[in-house]
Amino acid sequence: MTDFVFRRQFAIEWGHCDPAGIVFNSRFFEFFDRSAWLMFEAALGVAPHELSKAYDIVGIPLVGAQAKFIAPAKFGDVADMESRIIEIRRSSFDVEHRMFIGGTLAVEGLEKRVWASRHPDDPLRMKARAIPDEVVAKFKEV
Amino acid sequence: MTDFVFRRQFAIEWGHCDPAGIVFNSRFFEFFDRSAWLMFEAALGVAPHELSKAYDIVGIPLVGAQAKFIAPAKFGDVADMESRIIEIRRSSFDVEHRMFIGGTLAVEGLEKRVWASRHPDDPLRMKARAIPDEVVAKFKEV
Amino acid sequence: MTDFVFRRQFAIEWGHCDPAGIVFNSRFFEFFDRSAWLMFEAALGVAPHELSKAYDIVGIPLVGAQAKFIAPAKFGDVADMESRIIEIRRSSFDVEHRMFIGGTLAVEGLEKRVWASRHPDDPLRMKARAIPDEVVAKFKEV
Amino acid sequence: MTDFVFRRQFAIEWGHCDPAGIVFNSRFFEFFDRSAWLMFEAALGVAPHELSKAYDIVGIPLVGAQAKFIAPAKFGDVADMESRIIEIRRSSFDVEHRMFIGGTLAVEGLEKRVWASRHPDDPLRMKARAIPDEVVAKFKEV
Repeated sequence: MTDFVFRRQFAIEWGHCDPAGIVFNSRFFEFFDRSAWLMFEAALGVAPHELSKAYDIVGIPLVGAQAKFIAPAKFGDVADMESRIIEIRRSSFDVEHRMFIGGTLAVEGLEKRVWASRHPDDPLRMKARAIPDEVVAKFKEV
Repeated sequence: MTDFVFRRQFAIEWGHCDPAGIVFNSRFFEFFDRSAWLMFEAALGVAPHELSKAYDIVGIPLVGAQAKFIAPAKFGDVADMESRIIEIRRSSFDVEHRMFIGGTLAVEGLEKRVWASRHPDDPLRMKARAIPDEVVAKFKEV
Repeated sequence: MTDFVFRRQFAIEWGHCDPAGIVFNSRFFEFFDRSAWLMFEAALGVAPHELSKAYDIVGIPLVGAQAKFIAPAKFGDVADMESRIIEIRRSSFDVEHRMFIGGTLAVEGLEKRVWASRHPDDPLRMKARAIPDEVVAKFKEV
Repeated sequence: MTDFVFRRQFAIEWGHCDPAGIVFNSRFFEFFDRSAWLMFEAALGVAPHELSKAYDIVGIPLVGAQAKFIAPAKFGDVADMESRIIEIRRSSFDVEHRMFIGGTLAVEGLEKRVWASRHPDDPLRMKARAIPDEVVAKFKEV
């Protein structure tokens, strides 16, 4: 597990919620995605939309995503989300997200992402690349 | 694993896709959710919006969701999705979704859902209830 | 007003709806967008994702969109949507969408779109181009 | 036009954008909706999810929404949005939204909303009610 933890706070919006009055499941995966980008910005000092150019990658595409819904989040709730890289491999990494509401863990998420360049043969495919040492180092030093 | 398999086909829309030209991850969880409701309709003969009244439940809320992204899905692709209940427990069940594009498995999903009634003490919380035998039977007979 | 009318039918999904139990407003603009692409496919015989290549355009970007919400649409409702081009100008056109539920007009929409090529100086900007006569003709003959 | 102007700043996210690399149109209507709720919170001192209880209404449903897309907004852009009520009638009002990117007007929006209570005969329908004088006054005093 790396040392860098990214935290952000945001409110649950009307448009995030479904007829049961709670956040519709797909929205949590938007929240995770946003936190992953912002975590990289906070750790590396590179804005999300410049990550691609700064490291000559196409992005940090997902190969897996999961969530455990422990307690409901509803319109007006204030969410505190903590994100950290819990494992870094040669060209992929796992991001853990934990969303708290009123101090109680409401949702746990896990994203498996790849450090990827454009596939030479197909612009819509991607190819895993080694994560640079400097990037790994940034997540290990706090 | 139950015997009932629900299949549907749909096209990937412009609005489903992100700047990489492929389906944004949260959209797959919308696809899974939709297939789960339609699978119930196909198996039980009850329309999604009448499931609640027909069985005196508040719904079939998710307690977990996950996806494995194997191959990209892009604008214009035709997706074939297969959904089935792979495990039924007393008051919860697991739905497996497999999305194929051009015959190739592109995405695997798993939803953990609960057969739930409104919690007596809190309208925003839910309470697991035993899944009726007749419902279980419908997914086992084909 | 052109003669070609594109019709489709679809059901309102759980994930389309908000805590009031009715379709969240932004979803209607997804429905309009989808119908616009499918209307082009039906009229021209070109799949949405091939429109760009077939006519050497970058797309049919929106410069305006509006909706009038007349009656609510809720989970399980079956929507009948009619879309037609109500005005074609040199390089832009207006698409009218009308969504009926149970035969009653529920939502009226209007999209203003441009027939656009990539701007030579900026890949994120677009440049209006004359709509080919053959395209205009397809919407006028029925 | 009322005097109260609500301003917020937010960044365009990856998940907001489509394959053209710019914000997908429906997302702007989510942005408008969010600003409308926050404008009410700022003007009245009542949190969005408490507006309903505080004024014995069901909400502030939309009867119309429109947008004019003047310049594209792309991933990483910082949006400055200004929202104000430009007209208040007995039981309805118009909210104007203007979104600037780098000081340039990129999108103009207009929402027509109703001050609504639950319809006595149908829980999914709403009934317009007179906007309280105290609410009107809050938007006129700055």
